[in-house]
Amino acid sequence: MNDAEKKLQDLGYPLDRVPGAAALYRPLVVDGTTGYLSGALPFDGPGNLPKAFLGKVPTQVDVETAARAAALCAANLLRVLRAELGSLDRVERVLRLGGYVNSEPDFSSQHLVMNGASQLLMDVLGEAGRHARSAIGTAQLPLNASVEVDLIVKLK
Amino acid sequence: MNDAEKKLQDLGYPLDRVPGAAALYRPLVVDGTTGYLSGALPFDGPGNLPKAFLGKVPTQVDVETAARAAALCAANLLRVLRAELGSLDRVERVLRLGGYVNSEPDFSSQHLVMNGASQLLMDVLGEAGRHARSAIGTAQLPLNASVEVDLIVKLK
Amino acid sequence: MNDAEKKLQDLGYPLDRVPGAAALYRPLVVDGTTGYLSGALPFDGPGNLPKAFLGKVPTQVDVETAARAAALCAANLLRVLRAELGSLDRVERVLRLGGYVNSEPDFSSQHLVMNGASQLLMDVLGEAGRHARSAIGTAQLPLNASVEVDLIVKLK
Repeated sequence: MNDAEKKLQDLGYPLDRVPGAAALYRPLVVDGTTGYLSGALPFDGPGNLPKAFLGKVPTQVDVETAARAAALCAANLLRVLRAELGSLDRVERVLRLGGYVNSEPDFSSQHLVMNGASQLLMDVLGEAGRHARSAIGTAQLPLNASVEVDLIVKLK
Repeated sequence: MNDAEKKLQDLGYPLDRVPGAAALYRPLVVDGTTGYLSGALPFDGPGNLPKAFLGKVPTQVDVETAARAAALCAANLLRVLRAELGSLDRVERVLRLGGYVNSEPDFSSQHLVMNGASQLLMDVLGEAGRHARSAIGTAQLPLNASVEVDLIVKLK
Repeated sequence: MNDAEKKLQDLGYPLDRVPGAAALYRPLVVDGTTGYLSGALPFDGPGNLPKAFLGKVPTQVDVETAARAAALCAANLLRVLRAELGSLDRVERVLRLGGYVNSEPDFSSQHLVMNGASQLLMDVLGEAGRHARSAIGTAQLPLNASVEVDLIVKLK
């Protein structure tokens, strides 16, 4: 286990709790040194989408809880990278984060929610976790998730 | 006509029914071996956006119909690739799919709708069509389309 | 000052009015010759998000005003590129534009709004500004902005 993996574990995200696999697409597709990650939902292990992370922000899920959901999405993306590549050592840099928040029409703090994901990536990967980012408010998300996050990463 | 092109045609998507061109942007921009495709709407030939594919899911367009609209979007992206590159032989791999579903605020099966696009890409390109994917629910889409799909692809 | 920078200035966008920096992410991340830009809001200088550019299209912000907001977002992305890279000479081509419009559920002219951003990029960069594009209607955007725009660019 390398430093980044230990940090992820110490932050409360066991490495092996990888979200379940999808049938028709891949969690990660690699082209040379560029990795494209599928949108991650706040699953806590295969098939377990905690009720606390379901619904619209801020009426059904408050901003703080949604930020924790975003951190869990980011942790799931790191879990996918480790499971697919064998080690987080392979990650050279996070390039871009796409952040999607299941938003009430008048909720406009998507950036605060996404800070949960950005902070987790920095906590685990340090400066290599710092990325370009777009955060938007969606009308809904698959399975009524409050948050979805995807990444483009640079690999070694 | 290569195998992939024949499959696309056999599935009911004539190769030459390419959506109309846009004025201010390009349907495809290539950087080295990476191709970025503009968001495709479910046009059935230039200027023909079938009424069945207009409106919100699931109230105005049911899930099954929206999945067919997503398949048509994917077919249009393949048509664009063939028209711009001369042949689908140039496509080495689909890297990433972005899926946008014009969603009622309580509709949360965007993934089922997008399976229509993912399946079409697999049907036509085989394993080379398998991709990373993000599916989200939008408040609206251009021209009241029920679905929009974009791609990043690896080219030979 | 090169030609592109002069054009941007002449169109009414002073080069030095760069939006404020974000804490947890970067306005631009570069991987080789590919640059990923964070989503830009219609800031007119650090901390100044004009009220005219706040709210939903078309009820609170009309289409024409939203198109001007989109142009300002695009100008901000060019300002970021110049500030980070030293000169717009470093930009070889705009590859992909993501356009997000804070939309009422029945507003379906996101493409007209985004033409404001596309036109600005063409006006400043010429053919090098022509890009692949996806435009969608969001339920909301950070800070209640009417428009958000991000880019992937090819650098020299």
